[in-house]
Amino acid sequence: MANFVFPFEEGSAEESDLLGGKGANLAEMTGMGFPVPPGFTITTKACNETSRREGLFPEGLMNEVHEAITVLEKKTGKVFGDSENPLLVSVRSGAKISMPGMMDTVLNLGMNDAAEKGLAKKTGNPRFAADSHRRFVQMFSDVVLGVNHHKFEKTIQKKKESASVVEDTDLSAEDLHSLAQEFKRIAEQETGKPFPDDAHLQLEAAIGAVFNSWDSNRAKKYREINGIPDSLGTAVNIQTMVFGNAGNSSGTGVAFTRDPSTGEKIFFGDFLMNAQGEDVVAGIRTPREISELEKESPQAYKELITLQEKLENHFCDMQDIEFTIEDGKLFLLQTRSGKRTATAAVRIAVEMVEEGLLTKEKAIMRLDPNALDTLLHPSLDPKAQKNIITVGIAASPGAASGKIVFSADDAVEWVSKGEKVILVRHETSPEDIHGMHVSEGILTACGGKASHAAVVARGMGKPCVSGAAQVVVNAKAKKFMVGETTLSEGDVITIDGGTGEVIVGSVPTVPAHLSKYFETILDWANDIRRLQVRANADTPADAENARKFGAEGIGLCRTEHMFFSDERIHLVRRMILASSLEERIRALESLLPYQRSDFEEIFTVMNGLPVTVRLLDPPLHEFLPKKDSEIKELAGGLGLSFEAVKDRVQHLTEVNPMLGHRGCRLLITYPEILEMQTRAILEAAISAMEKGVKVLPEIMLPLVGVSDELRFCREIIEKKAEKVFAEKGKKIEYQVGTMIELPRACAAAEKIADYADFFSFGTNDLTQMTFGFSRDDVGQFLPEYIKLGLLSADPFETVDAGVEELIKIGVERGRRNKKNLKISVCGEHGGDPESIDFFDNQEFTVVSCSPFRVPIARLAAAQAVIKKKNT
Amino acid sequence: MANFVFPFEEGSAEESDLLGGKGANLAEMTGMGFPVPPGFTITTKACNETSRREGLFPEGLMNEVHEAITVLEKKTGKVFGDSENPLLVSVRSGAKISMPGMMDTVLNLGMNDAAEKGLAKKTGNPRFAADSHRRFVQMFSDVVLGVNHHKFEKTIQKKKESASVVEDTDLSAEDLHSLAQEFKRIAEQETGKPFPDDAHLQLEAAIGAVFNSWDSNRAKKYREINGIPDSLGTAVNIQTMVFGNAGNSSGTGVAFTRDPSTGEKIFFGDFLMNAQGEDVVAGIRTPREISELEKESPQAYKELITLQEKLENHFCDMQDIEFTIEDGKLFLLQTRSGKRTATAAVRIAVEMVEEGLLTKEKAIMRLDPNALDTLLHPSLDPKAQKNIITVGIAASPGAASGKIVFSADDAVEWVSKGEKVILVRHETSPEDIHGMHVSEGILTACGGKASHAAVVARGMGKPCVSGAAQVVVNAKAKKFMVGETTLSEGDVITIDGGTGEVIVGSVPTVPAHLSKYFETILDWANDIRRLQVRANADTPADAENARKFGAEGIGLCRTEHMFFSDERIHLVRRMILASSLEERIRALESLLPYQRSDFEEIFTVMNGLPVTVRLLDPPLHEFLPKKDSEIKELAGGLGLSFEAVKDRVQHLTEVNPMLGHRGCRLLITYPEILEMQTRAILEAAISAMEKGVKVLPEIMLPLVGVSDELRFCREIIEKKAEKVFAEKGKKIEYQVGTMIELPRACAAAEKIADYADFFSFGTNDLTQMTFGFSRDDVGQFLPEYIKLGLLSADPFETVDAGVEELIKIGVERGRRNKKNLKISVCGEHGGDPESIDFFDNQEFTVVSCSPFRVPIARLAAAQAVIKKKNT
Repeated sequence: MANFVFPFEEGSAEESDLLGGKGANLAEMTGMGFPVPPGFTITTKACNETSRREGLFPEGLMNEVHEAITVLEKKTGKVFGDSENPLLVSVRSGAKISMPGMMDTVLNLGMNDAAEKGLAKKTGNPRFAADSHRRFVQMFSDVVLGVNHHKFEKTIQKKKESASVVEDTDLSAEDLHSLAQEFKRIAEQETGKPFPDDAHLQLEAAIGAVFNSWDSNRAKKYREINGIPDSLGTAVNIQTMVFGNAGNSSGTGVAFTRDPSTGEKIFFGDFLMNAQGEDVVAGIRTPREISELEKESPQAYKELITLQEKLENHFCDMQDIEFTIEDGKLFLLQTRSGKRTATAAVRIAVEMVEEGLLTKEKAIMRLDPNALDTLLHPSLDPKAQKNIITVGIAASPGAASGKIVFSADDAVEWVSKGEKVILVRHETSPEDIHGMHVSEGILTACGGKASHAAVVARGMGKPCVSGAAQVVVNAKAKKFMVGETTLSEGDVITIDGGTGEVIVGSVPTVPAHLSKYFETILDWANDIRRLQVRANADTPADAENARKFGAEGIGLCRTEHMFFSDERIHLVRRMILASSLEERIRALESLLPYQRSDFEEIFTVMNGLPVTVRLLDPPLHEFLPKKDSEIKELAGGLGLSFEAVKDRVQHLTEVNPMLGHRGCRLLITYPEILEMQTRAILEAAISAMEKGVKVLPEIMLPLVGVSDELRFCREIIEKKAEKVFAEKGKKIEYQVGTMIELPRACAAAEKIADYADFFSFGTNDLTQMTFGFSRDDVGQFLPEYIKLGLLSADPFETVDAGVEELIKIGVERGRRNKKNLKISVCGEHGGDPESIDFFDNQEFTVVSCSPFRVPIARLAAAQAVIKKKNT
Repeated sequence: MANFVFPFEEGSAEESDLLGGKGANLAEMTGMGFPVPPGFTITTKACNETSRREGLFPEGLMNEVHEAITVLEKKTGKVFGDSENPLLVSVRSGAKISMPGMMDTVLNLGMNDAAEKGLAKKTGNPRFAADSHRRFVQMFSDVVLGVNHHKFEKTIQKKKESASVVEDTDLSAEDLHSLAQEFKRIAEQETGKPFPDDAHLQLEAAIGAVFNSWDSNRAKKYREINGIPDSLGTAVNIQTMVFGNAGNSSGTGVAFTRDPSTGEKIFFGDFLMNAQGEDVVAGIRTPREISELEKESPQAYKELITLQEKLENHFCDMQDIEFTIEDGKLFLLQTRSGKRTATAAVRIAVEMVEEGLLTKEKAIMRLDPNALDTLLHPSLDPKAQKNIITVGIAASPGAASGKIVFSADDAVEWVSKGEKVILVRHETSPEDIHGMHVSEGILTACGGKASHAAVVARGMGKPCVSGAAQVVVNAKAKKFMVGETTLSEGDVITIDGGTGEVIVGSVPTVPAHLSKYFETILDWANDIRRLQVRANADTPADAENARKFGAEGIGLCRTEHMFFSDERIHLVRRMILASSLEERIRALESLLPYQRSDFEEIFTVMNGLPVTVRLLDPPLHEFLPKKDSEIKELAGGLGLSFEAVKDRVQHLTEVNPMLGHRGCRLLITYPEILEMQTRAILEAAISAMEKGVKVLPEIMLPLVGVSDELRFCREIIEKKAEKVFAEKGKKIEYQVGTMIELPRACAAAEKIADYADFFSFGTNDLTQMTFGFSRDDVGQFLPEYIKLGLLSADPFETVDAGVEELIKIGVERGRRNKKNLKISVCGEHGGDPESIDFFDNQEFTVVSCSPFRVPIARLAAAQAVIKKKNT
């Protein structure tokens, strides 16, 4: 009874756990009666056993292998090491999940002097036979024996010199034969053992080498990065060699059942006549378009066309097929689901539904929502040359080029002169917003994916590379350094917020384009998803974008950004520096009309959809200047002394602003701000309503940790609302809710729910507090953490397991009080597919993300529903 | 059947819920046959009912009262409003828990013109009768009718002028009688209703007024602050008046069964002959010492001596007794447990055990551990005058005077010249440690009870006032301002860290003294408590202090303070600014001998007791200078360019250092620091062991949030340990554990326990992260929060309920993995009695606090055990 070895006839595509992906598909094709060179698979179990036994094969393995070879000899009429009709095999790794380039392969195994003779005789092509011999010894020595390949390359070079030829292909059969012999001597010298001529010994060693390669450092690293468990192990596929380089009626190629770039349903691929797979890969000769194969090998082409269609229909996915033609006869060496661009993935999914190959649900599950992000932002032309100087954190997708500037004011000035700029900062703060708005993109030395720069940039749909730790910014001197390179104001750089690349000079970009296929997928997703998808939007322009991308409301409208434009910041500063309550109220009264008109515009754009307005969140010092020169100017403008303003700035400065006097703490200690904002929202709502707009305002308190904070604020809001309604003689419905963004709020959620019409998890801050990470400072160690495998992902990107625990507690306790409590998320994670799956599982009501992520969130929300249904 | 009214004969001390504290004790004394003027109590139930009925008495209440009055008339032979022998009563509130000064009292009720006549006849003292009348009308009008008392005072003044006398006591019976009439007219003018002459109407109104006073704003506020539930309600005591002012054989006084200042067992008190209680309180006449009463009223004195002893023996506590002598006859008007100083409390508790009045457990429960704090630090002489300019947060107890300085370096310089200094800073940082060490005390404008200044000061046992928000520090100009007052370097101030007072000039202090009574209590506590009590100690001196106060080990030895002394900081900076790994390792190697010798000294002091060493915690920038001038100097010293050092300083600067690159994050990214510290600890331990010291080292990782962080660090520690052991040819036992100070660590505690020999909750940081509060910045709003009642206590002082939730999760999950996991707390809360009760309930193994809190923690730990046993 076979334990570890399965002939291709015995397996199926289902058995990829045991046979690996390649082996399972080879078995499937064999079972379908397709022309697959006969062979067998050694199971992943054998690999794992060997690993457990520290390199020692499990008992009986080689016996099974020898038996399988005997069967193969009978089936093919060839014999291992035979001088008449030698059996040659390929030995290839094949894990369940493909790990391209990570694992080892040996071709032409079974070759020795006798077999060379036999192959020469059989093919009538001694040069081909000698070359196959030479290639085998070289490959085996490199992969199995670990001999440095430079030695062989040097020897070939010498041989070419002594034969006075330039190309390998000009070497004669004799040259190649003697090269094979010389290679064996080199191997013997290097390893201290004679090169194995016996085919069975070769095979045993090659299997061992493939098993070993599973535990190589690079393979381990690859699995760590890609989240592939070490426990899978690799299978080994032993397959009869077929030769695409056996003459002019032979050839080899790679083909896709559809165009992997566009997704169009056309047969697509390359081939080379009289060549082996490695020639195609090595790029020495230029492959030809697959359609030309019809002329070269009409019979094989016809068969290939039929087979590829059958394969796609069978696997219900675009296939990536390797084939070889030996003497006019077609062989399939591999089929697998083909990699494709995001554009292609969407089109293929939609068209396969139309063709009846997939259900809508399966089509939706096929897509990786994260990969679709590139479709929503311009991207670098993939064909362009790039002079990459450093790679930071890919913080906001899209790509942009521009002249570098080092301050928000400079950005505004340069742009006003018609320049395109990239804003380069050590880090950004809300004071930089006006500069960020006009810039093409943002580069910061500090901060992670959830740093201020990153969050704001994503909200604006602008590219951002953050946490480029090698970048040393000298804003004063208007330059930055990366190692030896220094770039100054006005120099052009390009940033790719999808990869984190920082590039010297301009690189052309390709614009975003929402295809009809994408629209179709999103329509289907809408029918399936349970979660409401809203957008985080602070301006009427953001709101319009949000509607365009299908948002069903605004889940987070931050009010602080409204405070930064020129005429307003002056009033805000006057408010902050007020020496009396009366003076502060006067300043707030001047701000009121601005806020009110902002809100009215947003309500109008969102007509009929809910808008959650978050009240003032950042600490007051963020609105004040820091430099003495600016303080002096401000003091002059306000008619105050420099010292008075300086003292106030210093007094407000905080050691840890993230943990400071902000959010509802500010509204509680300055209730007049809360009153002004409440008035602005409600007056705007009434005014919009009077113009026929349907308004659904939701007022949200930030940074609530204690239920009494919310009670206190809610009482003030309700009192002010009654006053506004009385003044206007009109009432409107509104809700009051709270952010849940502090661990304490999760713990106290049951009590907090007493005063909340809704919860909205602020997962950015919640992640910061739960980890004790500052998103602005995390760049100093988070990349190292991910490299060391201490964290599997950036917790500001995908909700971390520990943060999930707190969210679960918050949801459970909140709903314990109010069974149907509306629960939302408005942190960055609201647009992350993996996190959306978690939110759906926790029965959230709403996810809210930046407008540009809305399509992705819609898709991910549908996937979450389907996933749950399937389990 | 009586519902709401209980004569004193029917109640007992047990019934304070229903009868209030005063009523219950009056009933108890009546039951004991003591001379209590007869009376009855209206229950708290009646008060609550009235409150529920919005001021309307419950049905039948006044009927019961009238019946009780009839009984009283029979018992006393007096009659309400009688012109022969009038019954006069006092009406006093009496809640279960005493609320001094909060509630209303009416004396002499039942008085009118007829009663005045009767009283004059009965006592033969018309002036006394008229004065009693006048006093009653005045008091009733003020308390019950709400008439402004200024009107009465003005009228008295006029009367004195017209009678040409200076003192009230010089007014004649006629004067007083006509005053009473004038007062009634004033009351009628003010209220629009005639003043009630009918005694029953007076009584009804007075009862209503007392009930009402329970719901007055000041009473509500008092209850809120003192955590007294509103639902208790107040009882009302109606008692026959007796008159200490009825002549020279009458008198009144207050006495304690022991000396409330020292606790000494002597009868202690004051009295005045021919006076009423209010005369004693008002301080118009100087009371006489109680022992002199023997001469004045020997019979009453003898009886008083007997009764006071009986009362103390009966209530098993020092009693505070009010008595009146009417015509030589002694009456007791009140007895209750007396307030006492901390010194007295300890002595009384111990001596009462020796006298057999209390069990040891009851004696321990009698003490308020927080109140004992004053016994461990010098305190201001209570008799001294104080010019208080502001009150900040009472951050570290004790009092000190000194000349003000504004930098740590100045502190060192002034002290080296023999001056005593108070260090005044906007806030302190680890760089200030050397200055804090030499100062008498610390004053900061910023930060709460858990700010750097506060924590370090408490650890050093130095007084600290933090968060004095009105203090504006101008360190450059070496002065600070509080409102209009400006103080400059060298001016003397006094700070009281127990009250938060900042005082201009020097105030004499009284030194701390650990009495033999205190030692006895602590010995008893040791026999009872379950929690191990350790100290947080960073230096051999701290460690010695810790042992002196009975610590059973060091629960937290911070290593960063070891980095700040002059020769070391240079090496630390060299390490931080190293441009290569080699250079950094060289700098660390130079630091190694210092750390090693620190540890060896500490291990030696703690011989036989465990020492938990926390590895480096603060971010690196805390060790670097901030000012350009200092950077220049540092660069020169290290042979580096100013720009290079400045760049590095800037690069390391963090937006939120509390959430930054610190704790184990630092040790993971710079494993060479971890290796050096491990080596220093283990080499020190081996070296101490070789000298015969018993060493129990515990290595603790700070700021672990993810289990793999601990695994990673533990692996490095174990590898390094093996190396050290091999080099030394000796092994020692050591443990590796982790701080639990991040919400994520609580959530992930089960996994973290895989790699931890112990947990130590860092409740300071855990509170910061759970709330999102920075202890350095919280001063801007936390006082307001407590004032508004949004938080009932400073969460950095007593563990907050929300933080408790996270701790519970951490403990439960940690022990789910390791049933007997050692769990400790080393945050400030380790010395807070209320928090210690929580830790004991959660079955913590250890609490660790600053050395000066160790006695308090020992006591609180014993109380926790007793409390649990009693429930």
